[in-house]
Amino acid sequence: MDHTIPEIVIGRLPLYLRELSRMAGESGKIKTSSHELAQRLGISPAQIRKDLSHFGEFGKQGTGYHISYLIERLTDILHLNDEWPVALVGAGFLGQALASYRGFQRRGFAITCVFDSDPAKVGVKAGGLVVQDAATMATRLREAGIRIAILAVPADAAQATADALVAAGVGAILSYAPVSLTVPPGVSVSYSDPVVQLQQMTYHLSIENE
Amino acid sequence: MDHTIPEIVIGRLPLYLRELSRMAGESGKIKTSSHELAQRLGISPAQIRKDLSHFGEFGKQGTGYHISYLIERLTDILHLNDEWPVALVGAGFLGQALASYRGFQRRGFAITCVFDSDPAKVGVKAGGLVVQDAATMATRLREAGIRIAILAVPADAAQATADALVAAGVGAILSYAPVSLTVPPGVSVSYSDPVVQLQQMTYHLSIENE
Repeated sequence: MDHTIPEIVIGRLPLYLRELSRMAGESGKIKTSSHELAQRLGISPAQIRKDLSHFGEFGKQGTGYHISYLIERLTDILHLNDEWPVALVGAGFLGQALASYRGFQRRGFAITCVFDSDPAKVGVKAGGLVVQDAATMATRLREAGIRIAILAVPADAAQATADALVAAGVGAILSYAPVSLTVPPGVSVSYSDPVVQLQQMTYHLSIENE
Repeated sequence: MDHTIPEIVIGRLPLYLRELSRMAGESGKIKTSSHELAQRLGISPAQIRKDLSHFGEFGKQGTGYHISYLIERLTDILHLNDEWPVALVGAGFLGQALASYRGFQRRGFAITCVFDSDPAKVGVKAGGLVVQDAATMATRLREAGIRIAILAVPADAAQATADALVAAGVGAILSYAPVSLTVPPGVSVSYSDPVVQLQQMTYHLSIENE
């Protein structure tokens, strides 16, 4: 396997997998093509073929892709064969929404523990789980061998929480805190900040278009 | 002004603005440098200087940037001088969390109306606003001149909702629905799907690293 695959290519694979899974749910649908995928995703067919070619042959020229086979291969490539346990840190409004979100389990992940440092939140329920004291986090994560965490804490607490997660063996952090984190090499961080996304769009919403 | 600025450059400007705003809150801090910004953001100093150079001169070589001036300029460039009113569609767990999020107002946005098509949700409160019937959405958006919307509806309802928003004059959509949307040219869509982000990271979390 090619070990120098650009991160932007890796980033598109989950989109392919998501759309293929939708297709698989459509009755009678067995095959697709780079053109059909492209149209649904707003990506060019050539880009899709090139992205997939990094990982070998997925179909013969002109005959399209078997949806279930492509799903299987992408699931392999992204290491989604087994469900990953995920720790959620922060049980505020957003943490509660994430803990209750049913979209994780169908797609390879399960939030298996929730932590908060606020005594008022420890012991309450979040998505069916009891919120645990963040002071016990390192021990729990190590016991459970958890390597993925979602950060839903305020900006000021984010770096210290990320440090604690990394020290406890976490290698992938999805952060909703509106701040850039510093992590050691080998640890992945992905960010979600709605304001950053909105601000990028307002650049295009100029006054003259009003 | 250069009108061919790559989207990836525009996408970094909100990160610069966010970090500069944090710096501005640090007591006694007046100036910064591309090196300091770079270190805090995990981006190279050369990249930051190159990104900013698209928009003119921000400081003299070797003297650094005035934080408040750079904030002012980025605020201008991203059209954040006035607060943008934002419509939120979907008042489920995530919609409630977004409606209650205080991070919008400090950074140029205010959710001013919330819609849902579920009769059980219409009339309830979300972040201090009364949830309105989605059937009235087009009229309300036009009346208020709202051009930005946040989509927090299920995947199956997302495309129809996006179509309705665009028809009502919305030009920028931040979608939390796990599905690719089709919109006319000139309309911006930005996506947030935690599973897509997690799946990109699991690629790097191979079994051998366990």
